[in-house]
Amino acid sequence: MKNKAITSRDVDFAKWYTDIVRAARLADYSTVKGCIVFEPNGYAIWEKMQSVLDKKFKELGHKNIYMPLLIPQSLLQKESDLIEGFAPEGAWVTEGGNKRLEEKLMVRPTSETLFSDYYASVVKSYKDLPLLYNQWCNVVRWEKETRPFLRTREFLWQEGHTVHATAEEAEKEALQMLNVYKDFFENYLAIPVIVGKKTEKEKFAGAEYTYTVESLMYNGVALQSATSHYFGQKFSKAYNITFLNKENKLENVYQTSWGCTTRMIGGLIMVHSDDNGLVLPPKIAPRQVVIVPIGKEEEILNLAKEINKKLNENNIISFVDDSEKSPGFKFAEHEVNGIPVRVEIGMRDLQNGKLCLARRDTRERIFVDKDVNIVESVQKLLDDIQQNLYNTALERNKKKTYEAYNIEDVEKIMNTQPGFIKAMWCGDEACELKMKEIRGTKSRCILENEKPISDKCVVCGKKAKHLVVWGIQY
Amino acid sequence: MKNKAITSRDVDFAKWYTDIVRAARLADYSTVKGCIVFEPNGYAIWEKMQSVLDKKFKELGHKNIYMPLLIPQSLLQKESDLIEGFAPEGAWVTEGGNKRLEEKLMVRPTSETLFSDYYASVVKSYKDLPLLYNQWCNVVRWEKETRPFLRTREFLWQEGHTVHATAEEAEKEALQMLNVYKDFFENYLAIPVIVGKKTEKEKFAGAEYTYTVESLMYNGVALQSATSHYFGQKFSKAYNITFLNKENKLENVYQTSWGCTTRMIGGLIMVHSDDNGLVLPPKIAPRQVVIVPIGKEEEILNLAKEINKKLNENNIISFVDDSEKSPGFKFAEHEVNGIPVRVEIGMRDLQNGKLCLARRDTRERIFVDKDVNIVESVQKLLDDIQQNLYNTALERNKKKTYEAYNIEDVEKIMNTQPGFIKAMWCGDEACELKMKEIRGTKSRCILENEKPISDKCVVCGKKAKHLVVWGIQY
Repeated sequence: MKNKAITSRDVDFAKWYTDIVRAARLADYSTVKGCIVFEPNGYAIWEKMQSVLDKKFKELGHKNIYMPLLIPQSLLQKESDLIEGFAPEGAWVTEGGNKRLEEKLMVRPTSETLFSDYYASVVKSYKDLPLLYNQWCNVVRWEKETRPFLRTREFLWQEGHTVHATAEEAEKEALQMLNVYKDFFENYLAIPVIVGKKTEKEKFAGAEYTYTVESLMYNGVALQSATSHYFGQKFSKAYNITFLNKENKLENVYQTSWGCTTRMIGGLIMVHSDDNGLVLPPKIAPRQVVIVPIGKEEEILNLAKEINKKLNENNIISFVDDSEKSPGFKFAEHEVNGIPVRVEIGMRDLQNGKLCLARRDTRERIFVDKDVNIVESVQKLLDDIQQNLYNTALERNKKKTYEAYNIEDVEKIMNTQPGFIKAMWCGDEACELKMKEIRGTKSRCILENEKPISDKCVVCGKKAKHLVVWGIQY
Repeated sequence: MKNKAITSRDVDFAKWYTDIVRAARLADYSTVKGCIVFEPNGYAIWEKMQSVLDKKFKELGHKNIYMPLLIPQSLLQKESDLIEGFAPEGAWVTEGGNKRLEEKLMVRPTSETLFSDYYASVVKSYKDLPLLYNQWCNVVRWEKETRPFLRTREFLWQEGHTVHATAEEAEKEALQMLNVYKDFFENYLAIPVIVGKKTEKEKFAGAEYTYTVESLMYNGVALQSATSHYFGQKFSKAYNITFLNKENKLENVYQTSWGCTTRMIGGLIMVHSDDNGLVLPPKIAPRQVVIVPIGKEEEILNLAKEINKKLNENNIISFVDDSEKSPGFKFAEHEVNGIPVRVEIGMRDLQNGKLCLARRDTRERIFVDKDVNIVESVQKLLDDIQQNLYNTALERNKKKTYEAYNIEDVEKIMNTQPGFIKAMWCGDEACELKMKEIRGTKSRCILENEKPISDKCVVCGKKAKHLVVWGIQY
């Protein structure tokens, strides 16, 4: 019964991943090197993600805005950390309207500069603050190695940028948005995450500090999944964003930015999917239920329509597949596409007073009375699937989360069964670089609220400062 | 009572326009030459437009997709009309990742090439057809003269691209989408429009023919507001998009594309707004009702909240402005921002058993019983405003739509009181060029279903082929 188009994930995980992307028609490689076409099945997942997050952002008082795509070189250069961080990945427009441009323009890799430039022109007084703006857009970073959704030269994201009158308020915002992401990952994507601060080496260019949301894939590789930055006054000093405070003194604003990207689609795949194709948590699935009539009898088709209507009326996104294809073909196709629940309506079952509900996650087929309260049954199944996917991922993460007390421990774990490693760290970048020699292991984040597991740095053995989670990353 | 930040539209229309854009905080000029910042008030209108259109597109079976931003030069060159049409406005990425690129990439001015390239790779059989895809994205055209929303180097739009097995089906699609736009303009934007085919000279580069939606601004200048193109097999031959038809023979697909842009926001302003600021049709206003409590008495504040709750529960988008500003300041601000209805709650009125409803379009203030069915009253007012804005624009258009029988008529009209001119045309491009000498007058579209008004060309006097609408354009 295994889908032949899909390599087994235990045999070749990388190949399995790209097989899923193609088989479920999420994305296609494009003639444009390093870029992908987001096909309807993939883009619909992004739209669903957007709708959930956008609603949440707006409930918290954020407004959407749209900044230009192209950033003049001189504007970028005002903040030196940022330009140094992004210059190697820059894509530059140098010709426009058949002329060489006097100043070249970078296709935005991120928009701190433009937001800061805008805020400098509109913020005057503490009464104007805070400004809580967000934008949904495309960004370009000239990556060398690319992989659909995970790393492409162009990707889609949202970037929130806020300005505040006090450091305290801005820090609260950065933490709040970290928690919005955490909640989204756990309760919508069914992906358990670890959150914390990045080390100095790993933080965003130009930030005072960076919070990160880190998740673990089926193969034990970590994925940086969303970030929230506190900028303090670094940008507001470089871009001269000032306001008259309550004491009528000129002060620089305090800023944050926070973002998540279409990379989350890659995370969804690598956490939940299996050798039969895509598996989607019901809360993020663009289509939650497919109803497949087996046979063309009027009774069957009418029941299919009736069930579909009931489900739709109760905010369950369902559809009837009454196309010409065979039932077996349909089952396989909807399985590959990750539709969480399939309702099968066949004459033989009907005559026995039954319907069949098939769940995508466990591939279990459950026979229910044909007069069952279908809305309730399907909703319960969707809730179960959502919870089961989360639990399965959490269990796996627990198994793949280790403690290490010396560099040999780290080597052994990462070379045999990679995952998250909790280990103490002295705070020296030199020790981070030593860790990196082991299959590129990097610090994922500092765990500020967990108890230390020893008092010695895992690398140098000197006095440890932080408990850190480490991992091999995408 | 006139808003001092806004020039009168009868004194200096161009200045009035930019004053509205700034005063209502729709857009800001940007450090990036020729580009604007879509501020929250402006972007929210775009989001509203998107939500209405996106729903309609999906109801008609279209799916969203996302294509790369950057298009390799070699891919563009496959269709010669298109590259010739867009090359003068191209913005080119020539450097990426600190290296000069082997092939330069155009920032998409439109995406026919990428869609065609994609369709060529996925379409195999008539069973795959039609494919009805759309994308919402940014595009770049290196314009010399720019004006917020109307013409900027970067703008936002949607572009639908469809492929079909027969010419008939594709032509039906192009016409259907024209009508979707017409309906959207008339029933949501309250903008009466003229629709028809473009002349050969004015059609889209690469199209067999182009349908257009044309509207008329307050000052009598025309705005091309949306277009729908039938491509026939022009692109499918250039990009080799073939399918096995029912007779098992290889055939090229038939294509359409159709789009509308953030330019519609400019149209909204120039059709409905006045010297007091923005005026928005309720169906497209991001916020429909503001409730202003006058005074701080608990009775007033509670009533404001109660009314707000009732309106929101009935899908009317309202909010309470209980900020510290004075009532007069609030009235002016919400008027500038174009909130269609203002509910004023003051103690004196309340003691007389009254509330005041102020409508933005006529600026009338209507006193109603405080125990009135507020949802019903407000909804009726919103419907009235929507209808009144449409009627006002329609009346104006009628007055500004003329017939001309010779070139002197055209000169006289365009030099004194420009508008739409209906006039016969022989079909020769030379005559179109003659018309253009009169303040840039261009053919807007051919009216295929209206009765000819004479049998002679308005320019050369020879036998006329078409009744054409002409206008000066943005």
